[in-house]
Amino acid sequence: MVMIDSERMLRRIRELGEIGINETGERTRLAADDSEKLGRDKVMTWFHEAGLRTEVDKIGNIFGIWETEENRGRDAVMTGSHIDTVVNAGRYDGTYGVLAGLELVQSLKEAGVRPYRPVAICAFTNEEGVRYQPDMMGSLVYAGGMSAEEACRAVGTDGTILGEELSRIGYLGEREAGFLKPFAFVELHIEQGPLLDAEGFQIGAVEDLQGISWTQVTIEGAQNHAGTTPIAYRHDAGVAAARVITFMRERCLLPGSRTLSTTGCFALEPNAINVIPSRVSFTVDIRNPNEESLQAEETALDEILRIVAAEERVNVTSRRISRFKPVRFDEGIVRLIEKHAAARGLSCRRITSGAGQDAQNMALLCPTAMIFAPSVAGISHNPKEYTSDADLVACAGVYAGVILELAEKRNP
Amino acid sequence: MVMIDSERMLRRIRELGEIGINETGERTRLAADDSEKLGRDKVMTWFHEAGLRTEVDKIGNIFGIWETEENRGRDAVMTGSHIDTVVNAGRYDGTYGVLAGLELVQSLKEAGVRPYRPVAICAFTNEEGVRYQPDMMGSLVYAGGMSAEEACRAVGTDGTILGEELSRIGYLGEREAGFLKPFAFVELHIEQGPLLDAEGFQIGAVEDLQGISWTQVTIEGAQNHAGTTPIAYRHDAGVAAARVITFMRERCLLPGSRTLSTTGCFALEPNAINVIPSRVSFTVDIRNPNEESLQAEETALDEILRIVAAEERVNVTSRRISRFKPVRFDEGIVRLIEKHAAARGLSCRRITSGAGQDAQNMALLCPTAMIFAPSVAGISHNPKEYTSDADLVACAGVYAGVILELAEKRNP
Repeated sequence: MVMIDSERMLRRIRELGEIGINETGERTRLAADDSEKLGRDKVMTWFHEAGLRTEVDKIGNIFGIWETEENRGRDAVMTGSHIDTVVNAGRYDGTYGVLAGLELVQSLKEAGVRPYRPVAICAFTNEEGVRYQPDMMGSLVYAGGMSAEEACRAVGTDGTILGEELSRIGYLGEREAGFLKPFAFVELHIEQGPLLDAEGFQIGAVEDLQGISWTQVTIEGAQNHAGTTPIAYRHDAGVAAARVITFMRERCLLPGSRTLSTTGCFALEPNAINVIPSRVSFTVDIRNPNEESLQAEETALDEILRIVAAEERVNVTSRRISRFKPVRFDEGIVRLIEKHAAARGLSCRRITSGAGQDAQNMALLCPTAMIFAPSVAGISHNPKEYTSDADLVACAGVYAGVILELAEKRNP
Repeated sequence: MVMIDSERMLRRIRELGEIGINETGERTRLAADDSEKLGRDKVMTWFHEAGLRTEVDKIGNIFGIWETEENRGRDAVMTGSHIDTVVNAGRYDGTYGVLAGLELVQSLKEAGVRPYRPVAICAFTNEEGVRYQPDMMGSLVYAGGMSAEEACRAVGTDGTILGEELSRIGYLGEREAGFLKPFAFVELHIEQGPLLDAEGFQIGAVEDLQGISWTQVTIEGAQNHAGTTPIAYRHDAGVAAARVITFMRERCLLPGSRTLSTTGCFALEPNAINVIPSRVSFTVDIRNPNEESLQAEETALDEILRIVAAEERVNVTSRRISRFKPVRFDEGIVRLIEKHAAARGLSCRRITSGAGQDAQNMALLCPTAMIFAPSVAGISHNPKEYTSDADLVACAGVYAGVILELAEKRNP
C-alpha cells in the first residue's frame, strides 16, 4: 500500500494557504495576479525540491513531471488541479489536488518506486474564472478547446490582458498546450457540497459531472399604480418572474428528477413599494448530469416563459449565456477508486460533481475521473471551507493508490 | 342646472400646470418647496380675484371661503384637494379638484347664487408624501388624526423641517386645523386607474376607498453553491420569496376577491448567478375595500410566510410598515352624484378609490364622497397623465351640481 508523508502534505496546504492573505485577513489569489504568482513560485520550488522536471505552457499551466529513463516518452498519468482562488476563498479548493499530487509523487520517488509511466502534476491557469473568462481556461486550452493565443487575449475584469499578466509574472511558457500526451487523468478535490459530510462517507468516487445551462431572462411589463390598477389590467413583470422561479423549483422536486435549478440574480424596476414592477431581469442556472434531461429542462423553461408571457401579458426575452454538456467519467477509473477505498476500509459512495472542474476538459483527451473529499457542511468559496486533516489524508491515500495503479498499467 | 366657466377652469389647469417645470421639462412641486410656493401664490391670487375669504392654518392648508352675511357661521360644505405633486408629475392629480372647486364657487357667485351654507375650497398640504411623511398629512391634521405641531416637525428626505419650510415660503398660518366645521366634504379627482376609460364611463361615483396594508418581509436562507447543493439541503431565500408572491397573486384571482396584492420592492443577496440566495427582502402591498377581507389577506400572508419558513427551511421576519382601514363613503352623497350624472345624461359607475385620498381623512369629520374623472389608460404620477377637456368639464358640471345641492341642504 502506498504511504505518503501526510504531515508534509498538510504543512504545504497550510503554507500555500497563507499566500494571498490581505490586510483584512481575506485569502485571494486571482489568476496571474501578484498573489497567485507567489503561489506559483512556491509550488515550482516544491516541484524542484522533489526532483521533478518542471514545465510551463503557453497558457501558463505549470507542470511537475516525474519520469525515469525507462518510462520517458510513454503516455503519462496526469493529475493536478489549480491554485487560483475566488475572492475571500478557503484553503482547500484546488490547492488540495495539486499538493496531494506533489506529495504522492515525492513519496513514491523517495521510496524508490519506478512506475511504468511518467506521472505529471499540473496546476491549471484560471480555473475559477473570477478575473478572466471563461473559467477552467487552462485545462480547456490544454485539451484543445480553445487556442492559447485566444485565451491570452482575454481581458480581465480589471482591464488587464491575461497574456500580458502571465508574461509580467514570469509564467508565459514556451511549451505548446497539450505537449504531454495523457494516458489517464485523475483529479482530487474537495466536494464543495454537503453530501459526503451529511451522509458520513469519507470518499466520493465521482462518476459524472453535471451539465450546466445558464439563461438570462428579461421580462418587461408595465409600470402602474399598485392601488388603482385591477389585476386584469396588470402587466406585472415581478409576478411573471416569481411564477418562473416557483415552476422551475417544482420541476426539481418531481420524483426521480436530478435537476438543480437556481435563480441567483434578480433585479426589479422601478423597485417602489406601491408601483407594479415594469421590468425584471433574472438568471436561471439549470444543472443535470444527463444531457437529455438537461435539454428537457431547457425546453420546460422556454415553455413556462411562453406561458407567463401570455397569461401575465408581459414581454419575455431570454438568452442562453453559458452551456456545458454533462460529462460521464471513466467507469474503469471510478471502479479503481472504489477498490482502493475498500482496500483501506474507507466508506465510499459514487457522486456527481455539481461544480465545473478541470477534469471535465481533460476528459476530452483521455480516461478521466475525480475523487472527492468531504466538505464540512458543504461550505466552499468561503473562508469557512473545511475538510478535516484525517479526511484529507485518507482521500490522499486512496488517490495515491489509484494513480500508482494507473501508472503501472500497460494498456488502457 | 349649474353652469360653470369651462374655459376659465381649463385655462387655470394649464396655467398651474406650468408652475414647477424645470429645465428638463419635468413638473415637480413638492410640499412647501419653492415651486409649490409659486403654485400656492397663484391659487391664493385666484381665490382673491374670486372675492373669497382666504385662510391658512397651522399645517399650511390654504382655504378660499365663499360665505354670505346670511350663511356665515353655518357648517360649510367643504371641497378641494391638493396642489403638491410627485416628482415628474402630470397636470391633473390634485390640481383638478382645487381648480374645479374654485371655478364652481366663482361661477355661482358671479351668477348671484346665495346658498344656505358657506362653501370652502381647500388645498391640503403634502398630500403626496414625497418630501415628508406621512402622505395626506394636511387633511390628516385637519381631521384631528395628528397634531399640527407634530406634523410640522416632520423631517424631509432633504433634511428640511416641514414647519420651517412652511414658514420660509410664507404659508405657516395662524388658524387652528379644523377651524371650519364641515357639513359635508366632496373631492373631485382623476381616477388614476384604468376602469372608467376602459369601460367607457364618464363619471365615477366613488363609494369606498380601499384599505391598505404594507408589509416588509425579510427571508434569510443560506448562501450555497448552485451546482453542489442538492435541493433537499437548500435554504433558498429566493424560492421562498417567489412562492409568497405567486401565492398572494393567486388569492387575488379567487372568485369574488376584490384584493389587490403587489410586490413592488425586491432585493436579493448576494445576487450572483451560481449562488443560492441567502437573503431576500421584499414588500407586500395589499389593498381591499373591506376591512374583514383585508384582515383575511393579512392572515393569509402570515400563514404562507409560516409555510415557506418551514418548507424551505428559511428564517422569515415580517413587519407591518403601514396600515389604513378601508373607508366607506356616504351613501347619500354617492346617490347625489349618480343623480346629477343622470340629469346630465352622463354615464356613471360606482367605483372604489384604489389610491389614498384627502377625502379619507375628511370622512372622519363629516359625510364625504368623491367623484372621479376618467384617466386615459389609467396613467398617473407620470407626465403622460391625461383626461380630456370634455371629461374634465363634464365631471366638473356634475360636481358643481352636487356641491350646490349640498350647500342648500338644511339637515344632514
